[in-house]
Amino acid sequence: MFASHVRGRVTLGVNFSRSLPPFSNTTKCTARASLNQQQNRHIVVASGASCTHPSSRKWRNGIIMAQPRRKKTLTVENMNPHVRTMEYAVRGPIVQRATELEHELSKGAQKPFPDIIKCNIGDAHAMGQRPLTFLRQVIALCTYPKLLDDPSFPEDAKNRARRILEGCGGHSIGSYSESVGVHVIREDVAEYIKRRDGGIPCDPNSIMLSAGASEAIRAVVKLLVCGEGKGRSGIMIPIPQYPLYSATLAEFDAVQVNYYLNESSDWSLDVQELQRSIDDARKHCNPRAICVINPGNPTGQVLSRENIEEIIKFAHKENLFICADEVYQDNVYAKGAKFHSFKKVLTEMGEEYADQELASFHSTSKGFMGECGMRGGYCELVNMDPGIKAQLFKLVSAKLCPTVTGQAVMDVVVNPPKDGEPSYEKFMEEKSFVLSTLAEKAKLVADGFNSVEGVTCNAVMGAMYSFPQIHLPKKAIEAAKKENMAPDAFYATHFLEEAGVCVVPGSGFGQVEGTFHFRMTILPPVDKIKDVMDRFKKFHTSFMSKYAD
Amino acid sequence: MFASHVRGRVTLGVNFSRSLPPFSNTTKCTARASLNQQQNRHIVVASGASCTHPSSRKWRNGIIMAQPRRKKTLTVENMNPHVRTMEYAVRGPIVQRATELEHELSKGAQKPFPDIIKCNIGDAHAMGQRPLTFLRQVIALCTYPKLLDDPSFPEDAKNRARRILEGCGGHSIGSYSESVGVHVIREDVAEYIKRRDGGIPCDPNSIMLSAGASEAIRAVVKLLVCGEGKGRSGIMIPIPQYPLYSATLAEFDAVQVNYYLNESSDWSLDVQELQRSIDDARKHCNPRAICVINPGNPTGQVLSRENIEEIIKFAHKENLFICADEVYQDNVYAKGAKFHSFKKVLTEMGEEYADQELASFHSTSKGFMGECGMRGGYCELVNMDPGIKAQLFKLVSAKLCPTVTGQAVMDVVVNPPKDGEPSYEKFMEEKSFVLSTLAEKAKLVADGFNSVEGVTCNAVMGAMYSFPQIHLPKKAIEAAKKENMAPDAFYATHFLEEAGVCVVPGSGFGQVEGTFHFRMTILPPVDKIKDVMDRFKKFHTSFMSKYAD
Repeated sequence: MFASHVRGRVTLGVNFSRSLPPFSNTTKCTARASLNQQQNRHIVVASGASCTHPSSRKWRNGIIMAQPRRKKTLTVENMNPHVRTMEYAVRGPIVQRATELEHELSKGAQKPFPDIIKCNIGDAHAMGQRPLTFLRQVIALCTYPKLLDDPSFPEDAKNRARRILEGCGGHSIGSYSESVGVHVIREDVAEYIKRRDGGIPCDPNSIMLSAGASEAIRAVVKLLVCGEGKGRSGIMIPIPQYPLYSATLAEFDAVQVNYYLNESSDWSLDVQELQRSIDDARKHCNPRAICVINPGNPTGQVLSRENIEEIIKFAHKENLFICADEVYQDNVYAKGAKFHSFKKVLTEMGEEYADQELASFHSTSKGFMGECGMRGGYCELVNMDPGIKAQLFKLVSAKLCPTVTGQAVMDVVVNPPKDGEPSYEKFMEEKSFVLSTLAEKAKLVADGFNSVEGVTCNAVMGAMYSFPQIHLPKKAIEAAKKENMAPDAFYATHFLEEAGVCVVPGSGFGQVEGTFHFRMTILPPVDKIKDVMDRFKKFHTSFMSKYAD
Repeated sequence: MFASHVRGRVTLGVNFSRSLPPFSNTTKCTARASLNQQQNRHIVVASGASCTHPSSRKWRNGIIMAQPRRKKTLTVENMNPHVRTMEYAVRGPIVQRATELEHELSKGAQKPFPDIIKCNIGDAHAMGQRPLTFLRQVIALCTYPKLLDDPSFPEDAKNRARRILEGCGGHSIGSYSESVGVHVIREDVAEYIKRRDGGIPCDPNSIMLSAGASEAIRAVVKLLVCGEGKGRSGIMIPIPQYPLYSATLAEFDAVQVNYYLNESSDWSLDVQELQRSIDDARKHCNPRAICVINPGNPTGQVLSRENIEEIIKFAHKENLFICADEVYQDNVYAKGAKFHSFKKVLTEMGEEYADQELASFHSTSKGFMGECGMRGGYCELVNMDPGIKAQLFKLVSAKLCPTVTGQAVMDVVVNPPKDGEPSYEKFMEEKSFVLSTLAEKAKLVADGFNSVEGVTCNAVMGAMYSFPQIHLPKKAIEAAKKENMAPDAFYATHFLEEAGVCVVPGSGFGQVEGTFHFRMTILPPVDKIKDVMDRFKKFHTSFMSKYAD
């Protein structure tokens, strides 16, 4: 007995009513189903090209999906509830729709825009930024050491590669490193931090390398999670925040304790708000740590030294562990703004604060190198209890080690060519080009938004994002409600569908209730960014007139 | 007021009694301490070279550690209890001691052995195995695409690199990939699986790439974890097991449900034992999945097709999700033994079992390539509920993506040079050399152990490990108890200290109570392995005579 052909959502009986997987081609192909009543189960064979009945035991480049009457062993209903509730907007449905649209365009579909510009994620190379020559030379040399004999590779790149390889088991980046990373690379990181912080010492044994900053952030937060009921760990995070934090806290079943950044004063961090936040939180959980993102994601603010001192005093008074997400430390554009590391500030605050526990995170994905896919990162552990450090190192050891290639990339970032070395000038030129262009785009974008009615945008002082506020008319909010969407998601969806620009709605990062934002990166090349701003103005004007109150 | 110099464990007052971190150099240097009573805290400045009083605000290449009277915010007492209880023996204290001994030897210390031979971890390159030329050429080309113009690189390597780069955003491996991996690489993986399984289709959208197999195993297990009390998820794992499983279950607070492999019949998997295990477990938890490692780690067994069929029938009857750890699928040495994938077997078992949920894991770290540091891996999801698959993909998306370099390595492994291509012969030669040498060492090691009194060892049919049983005399067991050590840890420690060979005690993997084993890799080169076996015989004889009953 054959069920007829169905498309998309397969609905063949009570126990057989599920969407096909979102990433599956089968959502676009025809599924043929047979109901085998004797076996008391449904069998579906779906294939991009053609289907045959499964009992014939022949499949043609397709897949078999068997859907029994008995329930699946693992279902959304009986899965880990903490994973179920977590969200990660940076790669959410609007981004998936953007990929679909790209696909449609590539197949000749007619749209009101020639291409999709993805401003949803800090992915520099995907936006056309070129890798740094020296960095890639070192990694190629580490990967294929025969190139050490190639005279076209500069000597300083070879020296870096030799140093890294000597630190690897069997002189191969294919061997496991220590779980906390290759020792010579940790030495180079410690030297970098010392240089950055004006000579304040840094112990290589307080450095843990990681696959991007995310992995280290997750590991440190994991240590902090315990308790039940009112004793459950609370972790303070800024709102707006980078959704790694909210996702991780949901996954680990910790309490997300929000403190709001002050949009009206350039997303500054107000200690009175910290106090309000922790006082409220103490009623229902046990706040144990504060996460600070500086320079800010998605907000682009750069904290002043005074502001950092206040945060440290607050954390010290309240006995909080500080997680300082400092992955944008090289991305400061605003005049007068400067990056101050939490480590340096707390050290210089004197003995009273010299015991403040801190983890500071860095990454190869941002800065001027933008090596996201390489997954390099590090974490410096300051004043961490030695027993806890041992526990952290044990925790990461079960995952064996972070990618050694990623570690090597981190090494180049912290140990770039020095003045006088053969690669110095080219490296500095490439680095300056990236950073100066980012600075130009930071201004271009903020100015552009502020020139449009119904939009306000703080200066993009640092990082890689603008986070404009859109003052939506009531009619638009109502229209969104009708479609069961958050108003900013509604707005961002229209921006994508009508103008081909992919941004992330503010609700994915958190925002004061009743306000609406989106995050847009400043990564596309200058002329592309100009195109984005033109598309925005046109779209926004049309949207606002359509939904004018 | 100065405390006097102390070494190693710093004990200066009630609140200041902690070991220094295990990875810290400070354990070997002198620490000078001052007690500042007015500030009511202890300050210690420790430095490899020299120390100054902290109030002078000068540090010389050292570190500052401030230890206040107030408790640390994060301590071993108030940390995540699940992390605290987890263990990971493969990188445990004996391995740390081995590293220390290496250090001592390099500084000229006199030991009864010339070097340390690390047989604790499946880390092929660290043991001298050379990387595959073609593989490294492809990765170097992807890393530094200028090499695509270099005539010394073969055309097939260039084609692989071009294909991978075209699949990457901005044609750079420095851009983020999809969270589940680069699409063309997932296509190549699916093609590989189809080829491996005799034409059974495989959908690229059922493939998720990962940073090593560990990351994917952890993600899938995480989905399965929920419930409390008797409803807590139980995950069945073999004993002996690879400690990633016990560590992950402890960290996730799932119930570890042990089933014992049958040592007396070549570590075979007995379905009656599975039944006993699950029946016992149902009294106190909710068993949801069974993990099978085939070929076995640490046991080296290769499951027969019949055995796999029995396991599938059992899992199906008991409604269990199957996690098949198949990372050693290329490592089969014993005559007559053959690797059968769970996917192939269950597909061929017919419609009754065609709905069995399965995740199968593979890795770049093992096989003939041994690219551990590259962190490549994949997972095939068979019959997974589409909703769950979406949840899994969401879960991994918060970590952005696995290392793209690692993904590219996986691509080469599943898409090696084909007959007729320029790199084919050299590739096959290098691959065969690794696998035939491993086969030789597998036999050499098992035969060697079995030739010694008081030792029995099953054939190393596959994988990279021997797991001999040591029949310890009572006196040795008592001596171990006196030192508060597991008897096999006591034995392994003496093996290391007296013969310079680093192995992992069986207690780290689990074993039938009252039996004692260790895991030793077969990775060192043939002459080194012969050396290992000579050292073993000498050590074992001396140990046994010392503790003879």
